[in-house]
Amino acid sequence: MAKAILHQGKQKRIAGGHPWIYRTEIKEIVGSFEPGDIVEVFDYRDKFVGKGYINPASQITIRIMTRNPLEEVNEEFFRRRITAAWNYRQRVVKDTNSCRVIFGEADFLPALIVDKFGDYLSVQTLALGIDVHKETIIRLLYEIVQPRGIYERNDVTVRKIEGLPLITGFIGEPFDPKVVIHENGLKFVVDLEGGQKTGYFLDQRENRLALQGLVKGGRVLDCFCHTGTFSMYAAKFGAREVLGLDIAASALETARANAQLNGYGDICSFKETNSFDELRAMEKSGEQFELVVLDPPAFTKSKGAVKGAIRGYKEINLRGMKLIPPGGFLVTCSCSYHMKEELFLETVLDAGRDAGRELRLVELRRQAKDHPMLLASPESHYLKCMILQVF
Amino acid sequence: MAKAILHQGKQKRIAGGHPWIYRTEIKEIVGSFEPGDIVEVFDYRDKFVGKGYINPASQITIRIMTRNPLEEVNEEFFRRRITAAWNYRQRVVKDTNSCRVIFGEADFLPALIVDKFGDYLSVQTLALGIDVHKETIIRLLYEIVQPRGIYERNDVTVRKIEGLPLITGFIGEPFDPKVVIHENGLKFVVDLEGGQKTGYFLDQRENRLALQGLVKGGRVLDCFCHTGTFSMYAAKFGAREVLGLDIAASALETARANAQLNGYGDICSFKETNSFDELRAMEKSGEQFELVVLDPPAFTKSKGAVKGAIRGYKEINLRGMKLIPPGGFLVTCSCSYHMKEELFLETVLDAGRDAGRELRLVELRRQAKDHPMLLASPESHYLKCMILQVF
Repeated sequence: MAKAILHQGKQKRIAGGHPWIYRTEIKEIVGSFEPGDIVEVFDYRDKFVGKGYINPASQITIRIMTRNPLEEVNEEFFRRRITAAWNYRQRVVKDTNSCRVIFGEADFLPALIVDKFGDYLSVQTLALGIDVHKETIIRLLYEIVQPRGIYERNDVTVRKIEGLPLITGFIGEPFDPKVVIHENGLKFVVDLEGGQKTGYFLDQRENRLALQGLVKGGRVLDCFCHTGTFSMYAAKFGAREVLGLDIAASALETARANAQLNGYGDICSFKETNSFDELRAMEKSGEQFELVVLDPPAFTKSKGAVKGAIRGYKEINLRGMKLIPPGGFLVTCSCSYHMKEELFLETVLDAGRDAGRELRLVELRRQAKDHPMLLASPESHYLKCMILQVF
Repeated sequence: MAKAILHQGKQKRIAGGHPWIYRTEIKEIVGSFEPGDIVEVFDYRDKFVGKGYINPASQITIRIMTRNPLEEVNEEFFRRRITAAWNYRQRVVKDTNSCRVIFGEADFLPALIVDKFGDYLSVQTLALGIDVHKETIIRLLYEIVQPRGIYERNDVTVRKIEGLPLITGFIGEPFDPKVVIHENGLKFVVDLEGGQKTGYFLDQRENRLALQGLVKGGRVLDCFCHTGTFSMYAAKFGAREVLGLDIAASALETARANAQLNGYGDICSFKETNSFDELRAMEKSGEQFELVVLDPPAFTKSKGAVKGAIRGYKEINLRGMKLIPPGGFLVTCSCSYHMKEELFLETVLDAGRDAGRELRLVELRRQAKDHPMLLASPESHYLKCMILQVF
């Protein structure tokens, strides 16, 4: 097995539990290897750090799989890891009808994503070093989680960097890729084939539940509503009227199907529009909503784009607040890892100052428990959800 | 009404919703006033900022009561504010048997704390400008919240700075100050007369509930357990054995009474000891616990003491982790406002590095929803509760 030796000064982050080793952190590699192989990692004092898979084509050249020098990365390894991940979900997630089963690094299986939607799984292998084990992983998922079918959603551009092709499709027997899942007593259509990412955003599940007690009898606006998940919860918790906005016609088609499926066709309506423009228009026409949800897609996927993202978040929050009567609520989210919690709070506070509104934080939430975070890896702490009362 | 004018450059924090005006931020005061009076506040451009009560004896010289120039601070003002606070709790707290009814600044009633324990209230007026309205406030609390009795817990040293005496006692008819409250199906004895602060820590209620799913069949250690509230939840959620540690004999007496009251006398035991020393001793003797709770008192109440606090938090977290087998859980809290969330996370990560343990964040929690936070006032965001899985 080849041996990668780190530069001095790089061991602290990695020894603290961060699983990524960047190309620039590697001093030398002794021995030969193929991309995707497991290599041993040592610090500059020749102290063992861990074993991980290597891909020289990626900036993140090595991802640590184990910190135990005696642990081998073989079928038994994957069986232990997948079993542990599934046991964790069965323990902390009340209802495992639909949940993230494997969250990559945070489940010590870097770059592997597995979401469960009812009886089916949606799988992503986002790095070469995990992709080479795909067959084993699929076999073990059938063995441990026992799904009726698996769909591969490897249509993610990050795979190109890894030298991997973009692929989607059934692994094994095909099935109807439109699956109806159950979440906290609601039903949602999940399109494993055509939906965003793995088909559905499971990370907001607990945050959606947090609408309880805030919407009764009120009018609710759900911006960037995608397939209308926050909208359904608002209806379930007693909103008298819910309006969802999204720019994607296909997402709204599913949103309308979800409203029908749950019997909220009379309460929920959806409009195909740019949420930025619509917020501005509704401010002009004096519309009011007792609760506004802002759950936009990531405005920044890089450090360099943070300034623009701040402007975007400030604008939607400012405009959102203006539609809320005193005492109403704003549920505002950011799923950009680069938009740190403190910066997000400051940006929303700044919007409040400009809007002349005082903001009271009811809850400061993160991602659902089936998306755990490695304390050492800030990249895994990406979702923020603030519930604010606006005065 | 006297008029306080701010120095240039001080308006941003205050205009953004922070309710405190420090002595050094006031350029001049025009007109005469008595300590405790309401004054009008203007920025350096003579723009109205708000009305608040003044006490030149305090560093926090003015606390803003309203930002509406037309709103008068009179009985109707207090009726509106108290009603709004009580309505908020009835809306967002599922069970109002026991909750914080008024949380000072965050309810736009600076320095007023009202906790409800069953049919009784515990009240603190921690600044002169609110203390002068005590009679009105008590009358309105009887009118709006309709308690059977009220106890005053004005035994807080901060009152001395305000020139106020330390007082405790019944306001009106006396009653048995040991009250049994109901919280999520558990019963707790609250000593309104002798308990810490207002008698009981309501701010951890939702965090205690987060033990669900984590303790079943396990052995649990509850450090700094006070009256054993985390312990009772651990027992309720199926722990096979719970050990609570605290240095205060009187708190443990209540903890034991709580265990009896809930039928957990066989599961929960309590030991009068310094948690620091005991953690060290248990590490030596090789004790193991599937879940450890660390809910210490604030290690720092000032910015200057943060370094010492970091050492303290690091030590207990390091020692706590060492008692946890791989896959077990650590519930670690800090109630020091000066220990910011990011710093707290870093400190615990540092402890993990020293202990050679990987830490996975299951949940990052704050205070319960009946302790809302003013977004503009970081002082009101004091409680952090991390639920970690330790590998």
